Amino acid sequence: MKLTILGCYSATPQVHTNPTAQILEINNHTFLIDCGEGTQVELRRNKVKFSRIKHIFISHLHGDHCFGLAGLISTFRLLTREADLHIYAPKGLKEVITLQMKLSASWTNYKLIFHELTASTSEMIYEDDKVEVYTIPLDHRIYTNGFLFKEKSGDRKLDMNAVLNADIDVAYYRKLKQGADVPDNNGGIVKNESVTRNPKPPKSYAFCSDTAYNEAIIPIIKNVDALYHESTFIEKNKALALHSKHSTAKQAATIAKKANVGQLILGHYSTRYDDLSAFKTEAQAIFSNVELAQDGKEFNFN
Amino acid sequence: MKLTILGCYSATPQVHTNPTAQILEINNHTFLIDCGEGTQVELRRNKVKFSRIKHIFISHLHGDHCFGLAGLISTFRLLTREADLHIYAPKGLKEVITLQMKLSASWTNYKLIFHELTASTSEMIYEDDKVEVYTIPLDHRIYTNGFLFKEKSGDRKLDMNAVLNADIDVAYYRKLKQGADVPDNNGGIVKNESVTRNPKPPKSYAFCSDTAYNEAIIPIIKNVDALYHESTFIEKNKALALHSKHSTAKQAATIAKKANVGQLILGHYSTRYDDLSAFKTEAQAIFSNVELAQDGKEFNFN
Repeated sequence: MKLTILGCYSATPQVHTNPTAQILEINNHTFLIDCGEGTQVELRRNKVKFSRIKHIFISHLHGDHCFGLAGLISTFRLLTREADLHIYAPKGLKEVITLQMKLSASWTNYKLIFHELTASTSEMIYEDDKVEVYTIPLDHRIYTNGFLFKEKSGDRKLDMNAVLNADIDVAYYRKLKQGADVPDNNGGIVKNESVTRNPKPPKSYAFCSDTAYNEAIIPIIKNVDALYHESTFIEKNKALALHSKHSTAKQAATIAKKANVGQLILGHYSTRYDDLSAFKTEAQAIFSNVELAQDGKEFNFN
Repeated sequence: MKLTILGCYSATPQVHTNPTAQILEINNHTFLIDCGEGTQVELRRNKVKFSRIKHIFISHLHGDHCFGLAGLISTFRLLTREADLHIYAPKGLKEVITLQMKLSASWTNYKLIFHELTASTSEMIYEDDKVEVYTIPLDHRIYTNGFLFKEKSGDRKLDMNAVLNADIDVAYYRKLKQGADVPDNNGGIVKNESVTRNPKPPKSYAFCSDTAYNEAIIPIIKNVDALYHESTFIEKNKALALHSKHSTAKQAATIAKKANVGQLILGHYSTRYDDLSAFKTEAQAIFSNVELAQDGKEFNFN
C-alpha cells in the first residue's frame, strides 16, 4: 500500500501549494481521492499513469476538493480513454459535470458512472476480491465523507517444502490456500497449519478531510494502519477551526490516539502558515507516530 | 496597453504549459480574457493584483477556456472581495457557476454579474469613457466569441506655453481639451489647433480564439494594433485544423494581412509540438510582424 500526496493545502491553489488530491495504491488498485484544481497537472508531475485510475472518491463539494474533476474527465476524453470511470461523490456533482459536458458538447467516449452518496452513516461503497471501501461520515459545513480503504486478507501461503514432504495432490493446493485440511496420497489427513503460512496482514487507510473534531469516526477507523486527518490549524487558531468546522493538529492527534491507529498523517493546512513544524510538535505531544503530508511526498506502508 | 499571457496552449494543462488565459491592461482597466484551469495560480505567478480584475471575458465553454473560473470566483470570496465582478460569457456558464456555488454553500459576498452572450453578430458588450469592448463572432465547434478592445480617443493635450501666451482664462481649458475654439482675455478668438496637440492615438486589441479560418472577422478587426489569433496547428496538420475548427499559423497570418493589423500574436498551440519555431516561420511567409505568445510573456503596445 502506497500513498502519494498530490496536494495537501486548504482553500486555494497557490504557486507552490496544491489543494487536496492524493493517490492510494492498494492491492493493485490506483484510487484517486479528491481532485482540487490542478490535480491533473500534479498527476503528470508525479508520473501517475492516467489509465490506471478507474475509481475517484470525492469527499465533498467545496472547490478545493473537486474543481479539478471536470478538467480531468475532459483530459481522459482527449486521451481517447475507453475504460469505465467510477466516481463516488456527494449527490450534485453528477449534475454539475453533466451540465459542463453538455455546454461544451464534450461527452465522454468512455462510460462515466457516478455513485451518488447521500447516507449519513458509514456504508460500503466498493468491494471486490482485493479491497473494500467504506464512507466515513464527517462533520463539516456541508455534506462530507471520509473514506476507509481496507485490503482483504489474501490466501494462505503454501510452504512448498512442507507441502511436497506431505505428499499432497496438486488438486488440493487451492483448498490449502483457503485454509482447509486436506488428504494426502497415503490416506491420511494433513493439518492446514502444518503446510501453510499466514498471508501478509491486510493494510488499511483512512482519509478524513474535511472535518471538525468528531469522535463518532473512531469506531469506523479503529486500528487502521494509517490515518490522514485534516489539521487546517494549530492550537493558537483553534477558534477558527471551531468556526469553520475544521480540526487542529492536536485534535487530529487525539482522534489518532483514541482510534489506536498505526500512523497519523497530517494535512489540509491553511496557507497562512509558512512553517509547518508546529503541526508536528503539537500533534506529537498527544500521539507519537506523526508525519506531515507534503505535496509530492510518498508514504509506503509495506 | 499591455498584454500578459498567462496561458497559450490548447486542450489540457500540463506541467510546463497552461491553457488559455491572458490579462489585458488598457486605459486603467485590467481585463481577464478566458480562464482555463490553473489561471488563478498563473495570476499569482505573474503578480497580477486580484482586486484589479473587475471584468472577465470568456470566449467559449470548452474547458481549456473556462474551467479555472469557478476556482477564481471562490478565491475572490475567500479573499473577502467586495467589488462587483462582471463576467461576459456564452449563455450557460451562469447556470454552471450558480449550481457549483449552491452545492458548496459558497455564495459570493460580492456581486457577481453575468452578461450572457447569445448574439451571432458583433455587438458592443462594454463601454465607459475610456474603452469599448465588442464581440467577434468566431467559427468553432460550439458558440464562440473573440473580443475587440478599443481605447477611446482621449482629450486633446494643452500646449501650455501656447495657452499662456494666448492669454486664455482657466475656465476655458476644459473646452480646449474637448477641441473647441475659445475666446481670449482681449476679445479675440483662439483657434484650438494653435494651442493644443492631438491626443495619443487610441490603441486596439483583438483576441480571436478558438476559430477556424474565418474571413467574416476581417471587417471587425480591421487595422487593430495587435491581433491575437489562434494557431493550434502548423501546415502539415492542416487537416486536423479543418476537422476541429481550428486554424494554422498560415491561416492566422492571412487574416492578419487581410485585416491590415499592426502586429500578429500567435497562440493556442497544440501540445503536440515541442518546437514552436515553425509557427513563426510559416506565418512570416505571409505577414512579417509576428510574435509567438508564451506563458508569462508580456507585450507592451505603447
